[in-house]
Amino acid sequence: MSTPSESRARLVATARDLYASQGVGATSPRQVLAASGVGQGSLYHHFPAKHDLALAAISATVADSLSAAARELRGERPALDRLRAYLERPRDTANGCRIGRHTSDQAVMSDAVLAAEVGSYFSGLVERLTEVFVEAGLPDGAASDRAYAALAIVQGGYVLARALTDPTAMQRAVRGFVSLLTSVPEETQ
Amino acid sequence: MSTPSESRARLVATARDLYASQGVGATSPRQVLAASGVGQGSLYHHFPAKHDLALAAISATVADSLSAAARELRGERPALDRLRAYLERPRDTANGCRIGRHTSDQAVMSDAVLAAEVGSYFSGLVERLTEVFVEAGLPDGAASDRAYAALAIVQGGYVLARALTDPTAMQRAVRGFVSLLTSVPEETQ
Repeated sequence: MSTPSESRARLVATARDLYASQGVGATSPRQVLAASGVGQGSLYHHFPAKHDLALAAISATVADSLSAAARELRGERPALDRLRAYLERPRDTANGCRIGRHTSDQAVMSDAVLAAEVGSYFSGLVERLTEVFVEAGLPDGAASDRAYAALAIVQGGYVLARALTDPTAMQRAVRGFVSLLTSVPEETQ
Repeated sequence: MSTPSESRARLVATARDLYASQGVGATSPRQVLAASGVGQGSLYHHFPAKHDLALAAISATVADSLSAAARELRGERPALDRLRAYLERPRDTANGCRIGRHTSDQAVMSDAVLAAEVGSYFSGLVERLTEVFVEAGLPDGAASDRAYAALAIVQGGYVLARALTDPTAMQRAVRGFVSLLTSVPEETQ
């Protein structure tokens, strides 16, 4: 027998995996239950409704992804190197962004609380990326615009890789953007 | 009574509108029939299966969107001006890209013929944008990378606008990218 908190953790971890591979709308709590191997009572005890499970799973994914991005984007290395490392990190283009994919999942976007979780991921990333562009020497407004552009490159890279069934589409988009970042003269950075 | 070809055109136009606002998976042929006002026999005569209607509607949208992009991207104006005009054109961020949204629609992506239609839109755009970056003076490889980046900005802009429920997210991403395009010195363009 696992403890209640172990069961809860296993349900959340299973939901996160299934949401990442097939989306929230297409994943029933019953499927999560079956894949997790915990007892049925445990599911309804911890998560009386699908919304509760979805919120726990999406919040955990948002928190982990924001921490990972913060680790990559902070540090001692020059700002532009950190941005490149963030942009050039390998990404799972087959399944798309674990969070970005929710923007086209009605089950998420029609639930104001879940939609706000998704929004908080992107506003957190915009903030983090804006800081780095400010460190790179840009004034606030321009840094914010460039942060949106950097995020759009990654999210758009996922869309192109899926549309063209070509994982290199992401790398090409990133390369096209990074080549611009690195060829802009210092004084206009 | 409308002629068979008028009925067909009306079915396709109605399907295109419904697919743009709610997606292919969520739109039944029956809904298209009801919204189009044509007779039931006409639907089954022209489009025996949902796949046939979806193919006609998606192909028409792809063809129209590619022609519109070609009109914007070709012409006598300097290459960079045409790119800006294409990137800065107002877009319907509430519903997302009429074609890009299909990449997260299982009903489209699990049908190889429909998925190929979606792919043909993006490969057509990459080609057109690459030509313009070549005209702007870039060597082929760099022009292709930049074409992927420009497309990713637009597709990612849609994702961000939806995620943040903020239509200005698209404009910011485009502005961040265009400011890079226009500040890169001529010799490295």
